[in-house]
Amino acid sequence: MRDVLEAVAAGSISVDEAEAQLAGYLTGEVGRFDTARERRRGIPEGILADGKTPAEVAALADTALRTTEHAIVTRTTDDHRAAIREHLGEEHPDAAVDVRERSGVVIVHGPDYAPPAVDATVGVVAAGTADAAVAGEAAAVLEEIGVGVERIHDVGVANLTRITDRIPELRTVDVLIVAAGREGALPTVVAGLVDVPVIGVPVSCGYGHGADGEAALAGILQSCTILSVVNIDAGFVAGAQAGLIARAIAAARTDT
Amino acid sequence: MRDVLEAVAAGSISVDEAEAQLAGYLTGEVGRFDTARERRRGIPEGILADGKTPAEVAALADTALRTTEHAIVTRTTDDHRAAIREHLGEEHPDAAVDVRERSGVVIVHGPDYAPPAVDATVGVVAAGTADAAVAGEAAAVLEEIGVGVERIHDVGVANLTRITDRIPELRTVDVLIVAAGREGALPTVVAGLVDVPVIGVPVSCGYGHGADGEAALAGILQSCTILSVVNIDAGFVAGAQAGLIARAIAAARTDT
Amino acid sequence: MRDVLEAVAAGSISVDEAEAQLAGYLTGEVGRFDTARERRRGIPEGILADGKTPAEVAALADTALRTTEHAIVTRTTDDHRAAIREHLGEEHPDAAVDVRERSGVVIVHGPDYAPPAVDATVGVVAAGTADAAVAGEAAAVLEEIGVGVERIHDVGVANLTRITDRIPELRTVDVLIVAAGREGALPTVVAGLVDVPVIGVPVSCGYGHGADGEAALAGILQSCTILSVVNIDAGFVAGAQAGLIARAIAAARTDT
Amino acid sequence: MRDVLEAVAAGSISVDEAEAQLAGYLTGEVGRFDTARERRRGIPEGILADGKTPAEVAALADTALRTTEHAIVTRTTDDHRAAIREHLGEEHPDAAVDVRERSGVVIVHGPDYAPPAVDATVGVVAAGTADAAVAGEAAAVLEEIGVGVERIHDVGVANLTRITDRIPELRTVDVLIVAAGREGALPTVVAGLVDVPVIGVPVSCGYGHGADGEAALAGILQSCTILSVVNIDAGFVAGAQAGLIARAIAAARTDT
Amino acid sequence: MRDVLEAVAAGSISVDEAEAQLAGYLTGEVGRFDTARERRRGIPEGILADGKTPAEVAALADTALRTTEHAIVTRTTDDHRAAIREHLGEEHPDAAVDVRERSGVVIVHGPDYAPPAVDATVGVVAAGTADAAVAGEAAAVLEEIGVGVERIHDVGVANLTRITDRIPELRTVDVLIVAAGREGALPTVVAGLVDVPVIGVPVSCGYGHGADGEAALAGILQSCTILSVVNIDAGFVAGAQAGLIARAIAAARTDT
Amino acid sequence: MRDVLEAVAAGSISVDEAEAQLAGYLTGEVGRFDTARERRRGIPEGILADGKTPAEVAALADTALRTTEHAIVTRTTDDHRAAIREHLGEEHPDAAVDVRERSGVVIVHGPDYAPPAVDATVGVVAAGTADAAVAGEAAAVLEEIGVGVERIHDVGVANLTRITDRIPELRTVDVLIVAAGREGALPTVVAGLVDVPVIGVPVSCGYGHGADGEAALAGILQSCTILSVVNIDAGFVAGAQAGLIARAIAAARTDT
Amino acid sequence: MRDVLEAVAAGSISVDEAEAQLAGYLTGEVGRFDTARERRRGIPEGILADGKTPAEVAALADTALRTTEHAIVTRTTDDHRAAIREHLGEEHPDAAVDVRERSGVVIVHGPDYAPPAVDATVGVVAAGTADAAVAGEAAAVLEEIGVGVERIHDVGVANLTRITDRIPELRTVDVLIVAAGREGALPTVVAGLVDVPVIGVPVSCGYGHGADGEAALAGILQSCTILSVVNIDAGFVAGAQAGLIARAIAAARTDT
Amino acid sequence: MRDVLEAVAAGSISVDEAEAQLAGYLTGEVGRFDTARERRRGIPEGILADGKTPAEVAALADTALRTTEHAIVTRTTDDHRAAIREHLGEEHPDAAVDVRERSGVVIVHGPDYAPPAVDATVGVVAAGTADAAVAGEAAAVLEEIGVGVERIHDVGVANLTRITDRIPELRTVDVLIVAAGREGALPTVVAGLVDVPVIGVPVSCGYGHGADGEAALAGILQSCTILSVVNIDAGFVAGAQAGLIARAIAAARTDT
Repeated sequence: MRDVLEAVAAGSISVDEAEAQLAGYLTGEVGRFDTARERRRGIPEGILADGKTPAEVAALADTALRTTEHAIVTRTTDDHRAAIREHLGEEHPDAAVDVRERSGVVIVHGPDYAPPAVDATVGVVAAGTADAAVAGEAAAVLEEIGVGVERIHDVGVANLTRITDRIPELRTVDVLIVAAGREGALPTVVAGLVDVPVIGVPVSCGYGHGADGEAALAGILQSCTILSVVNIDAGFVAGAQAGLIARAIAAARTDT
Repeated sequence: MRDVLEAVAAGSISVDEAEAQLAGYLTGEVGRFDTARERRRGIPEGILADGKTPAEVAALADTALRTTEHAIVTRTTDDHRAAIREHLGEEHPDAAVDVRERSGVVIVHGPDYAPPAVDATVGVVAAGTADAAVAGEAAAVLEEIGVGVERIHDVGVANLTRITDRIPELRTVDVLIVAAGREGALPTVVAGLVDVPVIGVPVSCGYGHGADGEAALAGILQSCTILSVVNIDAGFVAGAQAGLIARAIAAARTDT
Repeated sequence: MRDVLEAVAAGSISVDEAEAQLAGYLTGEVGRFDTARERRRGIPEGILADGKTPAEVAALADTALRTTEHAIVTRTTDDHRAAIREHLGEEHPDAAVDVRERSGVVIVHGPDYAPPAVDATVGVVAAGTADAAVAGEAAAVLEEIGVGVERIHDVGVANLTRITDRIPELRTVDVLIVAAGREGALPTVVAGLVDVPVIGVPVSCGYGHGADGEAALAGILQSCTILSVVNIDAGFVAGAQAGLIARAIAAARTDT
Repeated sequence: MRDVLEAVAAGSISVDEAEAQLAGYLTGEVGRFDTARERRRGIPEGILADGKTPAEVAALADTALRTTEHAIVTRTTDDHRAAIREHLGEEHPDAAVDVRERSGVVIVHGPDYAPPAVDATVGVVAAGTADAAVAGEAAAVLEEIGVGVERIHDVGVANLTRITDRIPELRTVDVLIVAAGREGALPTVVAGLVDVPVIGVPVSCGYGHGADGEAALAGILQSCTILSVVNIDAGFVAGAQAGLIARAIAAARTDT
Repeated sequence: MRDVLEAVAAGSISVDEAEAQLAGYLTGEVGRFDTARERRRGIPEGILADGKTPAEVAALADTALRTTEHAIVTRTTDDHRAAIREHLGEEHPDAAVDVRERSGVVIVHGPDYAPPAVDATVGVVAAGTADAAVAGEAAAVLEEIGVGVERIHDVGVANLTRITDRIPELRTVDVLIVAAGREGALPTVVAGLVDVPVIGVPVSCGYGHGADGEAALAGILQSCTILSVVNIDAGFVAGAQAGLIARAIAAARTDT
Repeated sequence: MRDVLEAVAAGSISVDEAEAQLAGYLTGEVGRFDTARERRRGIPEGILADGKTPAEVAALADTALRTTEHAIVTRTTDDHRAAIREHLGEEHPDAAVDVRERSGVVIVHGPDYAPPAVDATVGVVAAGTADAAVAGEAAAVLEEIGVGVERIHDVGVANLTRITDRIPELRTVDVLIVAAGREGALPTVVAGLVDVPVIGVPVSCGYGHGADGEAALAGILQSCTILSVVNIDAGFVAGAQAGLIARAIAAARTDT
Repeated sequence: MRDVLEAVAAGSISVDEAEAQLAGYLTGEVGRFDTARERRRGIPEGILADGKTPAEVAALADTALRTTEHAIVTRTTDDHRAAIREHLGEEHPDAAVDVRERSGVVIVHGPDYAPPAVDATVGVVAAGTADAAVAGEAAAVLEEIGVGVERIHDVGVANLTRITDRIPELRTVDVLIVAAGREGALPTVVAGLVDVPVIGVPVSCGYGHGADGEAALAGILQSCTILSVVNIDAGFVAGAQAGLIARAIAAARTDT
Repeated sequence: MRDVLEAVAAGSISVDEAEAQLAGYLTGEVGRFDTARERRRGIPEGILADGKTPAEVAALADTALRTTEHAIVTRTTDDHRAAIREHLGEEHPDAAVDVRERSGVVIVHGPDYAPPAVDATVGVVAAGTADAAVAGEAAAVLEEIGVGVERIHDVGVANLTRITDRIPELRTVDVLIVAAGREGALPTVVAGLVDVPVIGVPVSCGYGHGADGEAALAGILQSCTILSVVNIDAGFVAGAQAGLIARAIAAARTDT
């Protein structure tokens, strides 16, 4: 901070510049969707549709599109998706709206959107259909970050060959996201087989004691291997965290 | 019931006999340690030392020894074990007192105790030292039931070869008990590899969210394989339940 | 594993055979519905309709039917059942579709389905209407396994004669499944009356503290008798576990 | 209230009397141990030793003795008991101090204490040693209330004959208190056998999921019979509530 | 039991009679709705509509009416009530069907129903509209038992005069039921003002931490006064338990 | 109390007056909506629509309007709002009905309503759209109390400049209410920046572990700064508590 | 912020001054014990002894004493207190060390400490001995803030006259802190009787369901009156929050 | 797998080699401490002392030292540390034993231990003394991995300047671990200020609702920023996970 102030005192930077830098001293963000920060950090800000009205979600997608040339909306219902399609169809007829019903994600790209390319790959592992929505959310944010995504499906602990058959794939990525419902054992078994960072995502499914992803969350937290975890169903957060790691790796690759 | 009553009416059985039979109509048990029932059912009644004074535990062991020729005491502390040793040393100098410090189990055999022999084998699987006490409790009750016991140690999900190397052992027993602390994934993985009934026993260990065996219990209940479960640390119950199954199998073997 | 490798080296088995055996070294399963494993193990893989779309469920039932000649679908809604009926009516007009509305179970048998016959009987005990769905799910899987099923209804702890009147039935089966909602005392009382393995199934019902089956689950885990337990409402798992035990008993009967 | 005020206005009662009566309008109690209320209501105020220093407990027992001629102290440790003995030995050498180590209760009677006699009987049912402390606390307060107490021991649900053999005793009392640890099924079974009010007391014991009396509490609340319940280990409250009921019955007997 | 057997042996009673008596040795109940037991015990068996189909509920009401001349159905929805009305209108056109929408209770009296009259009164206290349904359920069962019911409304702890103004009413009844949502303080305050047994009923209402009646339940269990409690919203159980107490008091009044 | 009684005895006040004063000795309130108390205390009694029928809510609003000249209804649905509009439109055509859909609050002012003016300001801070309803409820009750309200929106911990830019506003109010969902960190950060009392309001939103406001509640309770808290979503209570503080400050300003 | 920067650019303030002001823009605090902030805000920073070694606590008390002329240490054990006494006796022989064993609080005043005087009074209400420690902690911090403290003891909901007799005291203070264990009803009853802000403090005591202050916390959060709350046993926080309110009132009194 | 088998069949590799490779097909690990895997993966296997006897811990440290030339033991007590010192002093007098009492970690380096050097830096952020043990555990494992460690102390959310002053340090590392007790807000605030991956570690401390790290865990899971998390107090896991990420970054740096 002192440097900036001395520069102001010396007249070598203007008050405007100093104000901007000191604001940046904190985070450099201004407004809801901050192009500067997204460009620097590489992680798009998602719009969580859950709990918002269709109109609100459409308006936020519009703003994101105007300010960052793309938008990523998660946990949409049919109503949200209809509102986004209608609103953007009118306001941004040249935008590409990619609706993924399975995962509830909507991706919008403006005509001038230049997708980033990050030289690193993240594997997204899921056992069954219940995990697909969460894995799809993680994959969507990774794609927007520009990271290579390797989807690895139908991998479950009840049948080890389904896991061991996939070891080559598991071992060629830079980071792994493993979605797991029920007893949440899959991230533990996978982390024992690879040497890269693994992020577990508990998935809410099932019934009875420990349902809603709570057994899976507790199991991943108690794992006897090296794992970190995000909240239940938080596919977006898992994707963004894996994306930050992948970007750091890619930057190291590029820097040299 | 009617048969008994008609026999009484007909005078073909005495009132005493009828009373005994009608009591048996319910369960046939009398008193704290019931030789008749234990003989018929094959499962010894355990003495849970936890929450009782050393003197109480020693007295109960004495009674069990007198009525059933053996005693099995679980969750003993040093004080309980000292009291049992001293009391039985005086009262039953010819009894064999087998103290197992690791699992906290004490087994006492009277001089005339004829150990049963059940033609079936139960595998008791444990991952690490934390699970040893629980597995030891299960093994002890199985031994008293007369079932063959196969101990399978150092089997953990973080390293699959430690499991797959043991598949031959896992596949030669009639029933499996799998003790599991932390995330409780081991019973699920084992049950996917075998065709016999598997009983999971959650083990209290670790720290943080899901500790004290709660994550393991929830995980086993949520398992995507076929498992039944007993309460956290309930090695005795797991052993007795596996023993009931093993006895039924052995009886079928013998009957024919 | 070494044996297989030495055989390959010696040329006594082909690479194909070795690959198959080594895969089998792990579990021997391939694909979603594995005829080989089901034949060996005897337990059908159920299709849990809950959380899947009607179209997904119908497609899975179709696959199961094609690969294993039968299908068992649980927790179906009206929509699931309609989709199964319509889809299989078109694709498999000669299949027998057995819809059980009470328990939400759908059983499909292909024209060439040869039902297994296992020489053992499992008793399925339920107190009231709330438990019927869970008990029905357990009975359905037992029937597909080929085990004899004895349904014992209207047995509750509030009126002991309703239990004691059924003791003869309770004592003639090889294994018992006891479904119990509310306070979950029934498995404990039944286990005190019989000498065979008893599996408790907590049932979600009622209101207030301990509702949704949590009181029943905790009560069965804390039971002062010998019981194992499955998750709340997990009738399928209870049936499959009892089926594994019954098959082991039947195999012992047959072997000799 | 108006009557009192009019009497004051009319001068027919003094201001002092009116103040006393209006205070009584609310509860009639004054001070920590209120002889007037205890006499009217018949329920002694207990001194909970848990969480107080030995000196505090001894002082409270002293005060109770002075004001109500007796004292009942619950949940005492050895230190509490020593302090009570020493302090009362000096201050009230003619008081009778009855120390019950099993239940942790201390009863003190002054030399002029006239025990009440209530023409009603309460049964106190307990399964095992773990329940004895709680049942002892309930019995102690009932004795001080003057109610007849019938102790019914060694009654458990795992063996129905132990219950049915006691039906005559269970059916001759006016009210029943049933202490129950573990799965808490005993109050439900007992309430199905009798026609009098039954109060369940969950007992903290055991280990694993549902321990510390929580499974028993939830089970009694979920009971399919008619029961009311007090908090876990609250033997004193159960005794006092049963005492209020017994006194009401006795009063009805006497009134006529 | 011996007496009965000796009588059989002596031929003084028939086998049929003996069988009936020995069944009665246990509980004397036969079938779903047992006139004998209800007559002896005075508590009608309620039909819990929640979780049953309208047709099931109507059929159970029909059976209750046929066997006991009346029926009490709780937690009915509009659909349940319509089914009861329609079914009983056809089958029992002369029965009186009393539908209480507020509390969801339906009472049916056959033409020959002779309402019992119990010489005792129970007060039913409620704070607000949220508690009215639960209090109405309690009152309904008390009316069927034949006990006098005193409804005391609009009594809340936030304004003490609303309580103290009702003290005369609170003090003239034999037993009190106090329904309490939110923080559940009302039963504690009321129990401090009266000398009769008080039964607290937690009521599910409100939002946030401790909602659904859990704060009220915990508060009543932790009360510093003498209270027993039933489960959240269990108005029927509270009414039946209060009815058992009131009947005992009334019997004592009559006996003399 | 004695003073009143002596005055009655002396005849200096009438019995009626004494009765009124002694009732007032307790709280001075009579009836559901007490003008006297609201005038003295300044906090309107809110009508919680949640859990009441539209007709009940409209009737309560009518009563409030008649007795206190205004009404504040919270947590209304569309149906509640329609019923209020219709009912009051007929009964009170000259009342001003202010419907706020976002926060679910309805404010009604009678034609003679004189809004109070309290010389103090409360800041109401909210992060996002999810918190708006709760913040709106707090603001509404503050407006009715007559306190100045400063709304401070879009303040979140993920971007500190959004907080630090608002410090001047945060520092000019007398009391702060901070609504916070998710991890509930905002009240802690704000309380570290100001010197006035801060009341945190956890907001129910989000999904996964700690959802429904429970993480935010626990976080505010565990805060390392000085905060008090109200229940999850309890905007009304937060507003009323802040209003009591603001009124005390304003009274101190005015008194001098 | 811009103002400061413009002043720097204009040379009207030095870089050092600007840096200090911009730091102050955030909070103005530097170091562990900040005299500037404490002077401005009036709330001392407490030292929580719980979880720290005696040596650490003594060192922190020493630092507080040096920088702010006084220290307030909470939750001390005998060892902490001995370490403070010994260390400060050596280092600060002229400091006054006030040890309060009941509440575990230690207050240290340096020889030049000038106690503040705030023209406002806070009432601290407690029911029994269990609440005394928490109430003592609140009172201690209030004394250091300089606020008048009115202790109101032995006030409980089980006996309303003990509350109503204290109404005059309750009504003469500016703010109320009410400590409440068990069912936590006292803050609700008190808040119904006064017009000033009431802060509830749940107290951990008792046993069984809802113990450790959880029932009291839930009850205060669910209260049907206007209350805010702090965490269980958080007497310091309650005192500091009440002190902030009292200081605001006193400032308003003084300002005019 | 096929490739290996074909090579065996072709005789191009020996059976021994094939066996080794196929074992490696799974994980390549053998035994408790696997030099091969640790060398490849770079993460040492920690010895958790908690729950093991001093002798067991010393023996495990000995084994680790023999097989991997170093050992890292966590959560040691004084007894564990004494046993390690004594045992290794005898067996490995030339080993360097580094005991860190604050964090409970013991590091042992054999004389030939060649510490790895990983070209990446991890920042370890902690707020206060309570977090120091957890942060120390994370730092210890990072040091053994060979990663640069930047300790950043005394950073708390209650005073933002303490955070903003450290922004330069926070922004120069490759990965951040943020330990946080109480309300757990620190990881959220830090993650808003940086562009690198942040791993939160909840710390067990404090008292009341949400204590033992549960509030912090829920808060980090609910964070509105991008974070992953490990279990409460799991400093070792956080360090190992950050080490995996740092190694991947360093490898990318080196590769090019």
